Amino acid sequence: VSVRALYLDGGELCYRSDHEEPRPGPDEALIRVSVAGICATDLELARGYKGGFQGVPGHEFVGVVERAPDPAWQGRRVTASINVGCGRCARCLATGPEHCGDRAVIGILGRDGAFAEYVAAPLANLVAVPDALTDERAVFTEPLAAALRITEQLEAPPGRAAVIGPGRLGMLVGKVLSLAGTEVTMIGRSAASLALARAWGLAAASGQDAPRRGFDVVVDAAGNPAGFRLALDLVRPLGTVVVKSTFAGACDVDMSTIVVNEIRVIGSRCGPFAPALLLLARGQVDVDGLMGAEYRLEQGVAAFAHAARPGARKILLRP
Amino acid sequence: VSVRALYLDGGELCYRSDHEEPRPGPDEALIRVSVAGICATDLELARGYKGGFQGVPGHEFVGVVERAPDPAWQGRRVTASINVGCGRCARCLATGPEHCGDRAVIGILGRDGAFAEYVAAPLANLVAVPDALTDERAVFTEPLAAALRITEQLEAPPGRAAVIGPGRLGMLVGKVLSLAGTEVTMIGRSAASLALARAWGLAAASGQDAPRRGFDVVVDAAGNPAGFRLALDLVRPLGTVVVKSTFAGACDVDMSTIVVNEIRVIGSRCGPFAPALLLLARGQVDVDGLMGAEYRLEQGVAAFAHAARPGARKILLRP
Repeated sequence: VSVRALYLDGGELCYRSDHEEPRPGPDEALIRVSVAGICATDLELARGYKGGFQGVPGHEFVGVVERAPDPAWQGRRVTASINVGCGRCARCLATGPEHCGDRAVIGILGRDGAFAEYVAAPLANLVAVPDALTDERAVFTEPLAAALRITEQLEAPPGRAAVIGPGRLGMLVGKVLSLAGTEVTMIGRSAASLALARAWGLAAASGQDAPRRGFDVVVDAAGNPAGFRLALDLVRPLGTVVVKSTFAGACDVDMSTIVVNEIRVIGSRCGPFAPALLLLARGQVDVDGLMGAEYRLEQGVAAFAHAARPGARKILLRP
Repeated sequence: VSVRALYLDGGELCYRSDHEEPRPGPDEALIRVSVAGICATDLELARGYKGGFQGVPGHEFVGVVERAPDPAWQGRRVTASINVGCGRCARCLATGPEHCGDRAVIGILGRDGAFAEYVAAPLANLVAVPDALTDERAVFTEPLAAALRITEQLEAPPGRAAVIGPGRLGMLVGKVLSLAGTEVTMIGRSAASLALARAWGLAAASGQDAPRRGFDVVVDAAGNPAGFRLALDLVRPLGTVVVKSTFAGACDVDMSTIVVNEIRVIGSRCGPFAPALLLLARGQVDVDGLMGAEYRLEQGVAAFAHAARPGARKILLRP
């Protein structure tokens, strides 16, 4: 059986009307995709990041279970966490599949993703979407979970935090920290993005106006090397820089700043789905303001181009 | 009154027979320097690091108190911690002088150091040297304290650690981690330095032979950008890289490695003197193996050249 899908091959994105239907493994479900979101990692993959992913991209999605070995999942509306580990190694057993050396990652590494009519996912990764939550909001579960990862990694909510890059992920990070009791300043260049930050009740400033060494925690969600360098300028001595950006290529870092000020730098990737869904279902993160535009799968290449524009909000794909 | 001293001016080191004697402030002691050690930071300062320090370098020293406002210190053999804060700001009050925005640092920043007949230091910075400890061993207090800073910063002793750069500081770091119950591998290039590591009971390997992603903690004490890049290769996912190197210039870093593996990078600078002196007094860190050569102050320029040679051990200066 063939399905419609976007396909990526070494940085080349195309639409296919005859991609092979995913074949779920023994403990996996086949999910009919309702809607999927394009994120910065997809754009990096399409630029050939990490030598390029070959397959169907897409890891933020909501869908309906079409087939599953456990009938309890049949017909349910779900989203899914994206890391699929071996389940047997020390890392899987200790901290989960996120850092398994043999892992696949849905739509990112070694496994087809959700920019298609169907996607397969292990039952262990499925999370039911509450009825009250629309598909368009629930598709923010994965990026909101990634934002919540920061609060997992910090011992306690910081007093003052800055978030560099008020984009799709950056806004979610700012909101999550604010909900945890932190005084958040969003740092950006465009008036539109800073206006959205203020509409969400967050302080906003340009990089030049933000106080040097003035923040306990600075989150770099800028997606470029300048963001990390600014983060090192804004964080206080003994403070923490959380890096959320994944971008291809190297970053010139003045290591002596890190040493002399004893700064802590933490890489941050995937986070917990349950609290993300809870916050979305309660309406505590108003993601409607992050909605950009919707495209059909057939217009996927144009959708990617739109998502890559500066200031673009969340671009959704509908099979 | 004039004293003999080494003097640094914008990366130019010279010997002066007529430097002005230090004038201790109201809560400070005047110390006659017995012996002082040259460390990598001195070499960086002499290369013009951070725009260059103007004054007398030297921050590892042992001496005898010549004058002090508190007579209890008179005639005592001492060493001293090196950060001098304002004592009033939030950082001084919360975590001490190390990160005061107005701090001076003895021999490094805004304050003359110990490569001279006399040095001044606040009484609050003085630490008495136990009688049983020789000057030549006690001069390692400051670098050993810097090594112990790592155990202050880590929540718990790591299971397996690698230390890149088996030089003067790297060896102390390896020994301190080993004493804390960690399985330590020293990573270096020269056969001589790896032999010393083995003589200290530590495992030793070349960078190529060390297991990728095999260490909970990797300490970068290499003093060059290649050391940090190797550290990112050797640390396991969710592991910690501690940066002890201060070197002038930027380092090209692949930030996506930090993000995807959720690595934590911690800058590490000055540490606690009391446990350092205790370990030295007990003979638990056999610093005799790190001794290089001794020079008179007049031969200071030659001493710096010696200390900068690859594989050089601790070079001491005697006024």
